[in-house]
Amino acid sequence: MDEFMQAAIEEAEKGRDAGGVPIGSVLVYEGKIIGRGHNQRQQKGSAILHGEMSALEDAGRQPARVYRNSVIYTTLSPCPMCSGAIRLYQIPRVVIGENQTFLGDERLLLTSDIELEVLQDPRCIQLMEDFIAAHPEMWNEDIGE
Amino acid sequence: MDEFMQAAIEEAEKGRDAGGVPIGSVLVYEGKIIGRGHNQRQQKGSAILHGEMSALEDAGRQPARVYRNSVIYTTLSPCPMCSGAIRLYQIPRVVIGENQTFLGDERLLLTSDIELEVLQDPRCIQLMEDFIAAHPEMWNEDIGE
Repeated sequence: MDEFMQAAIEEAEKGRDAGGVPIGSVLVYEGKIIGRGHNQRQQKGSAILHGEMSALEDAGRQPARVYRNSVIYTTLSPCPMCSGAIRLYQIPRVVIGENQTFLGDERLLLTSDIELEVLQDPRCIQLMEDFIAAHPEMWNEDIGE
Repeated sequence: MDEFMQAAIEEAEKGRDAGGVPIGSVLVYEGKIIGRGHNQRQQKGSAILHGEMSALEDAGRQPARVYRNSVIYTTLSPCPMCSGAIRLYQIPRVVIGENQTFLGDERLLLTSDIELEVLQDPRCIQLMEDFIAAHPEMWNEDIGE
């Protein structure tokens, strides 16, 4: 497996093990992880720290050229908020663990000239299936449903 | 002036007085402010705490019905990230201080059936004009340019 998706899955597993939403993400620039994180809704009572947002926050303030030469890896198809952040910073490529349990704003990303790769990784799917079955209310809250 | 836009401007002024990006926001539910905040790029080294995101974070975890019956006030037209958050939580109405110094994702919000009101408030415009003239590099960083 790709080492960066592996790192994103490890972030998702950290979230799961803490009783949270199991979605992880890493931001990769020039072949190195510069930001990593996972959903913190449960752990920090946060409405905005989705996996991708946590990875962006962990990377700190970066100049535009860094984002525009980065790849973001996320275990799940990015929701409208995270897709908006990817569009704001013009991150040109998103590697997505899966989009079977939730389909985010992929069409909008594609029309924004952002390249997507969807892996349909069985580990990512299993993380979400187990979580949604166990905590449907937390999942609905996370996606604004 | 509308008390809620007044509160958003006060948030923007707090940001300005701390040397930060002067954009503020409040989230209003049933006639009461349930979240308020301002851009924290400079103050917290944050890539995600724009004004609207700070207000959402300050409101904490809320059920979907709260967002869907709320109004978000922001001193500046919402960028793609903040517009994405508004779309995620399906906040049905956005009151915007101004969109002359920066035009965000308003078209996307409108096509998402979100109602916009743009005030073109001179105080909001002045805050941004002064800031952009004094700190063009910080402003460009904030909008991913």
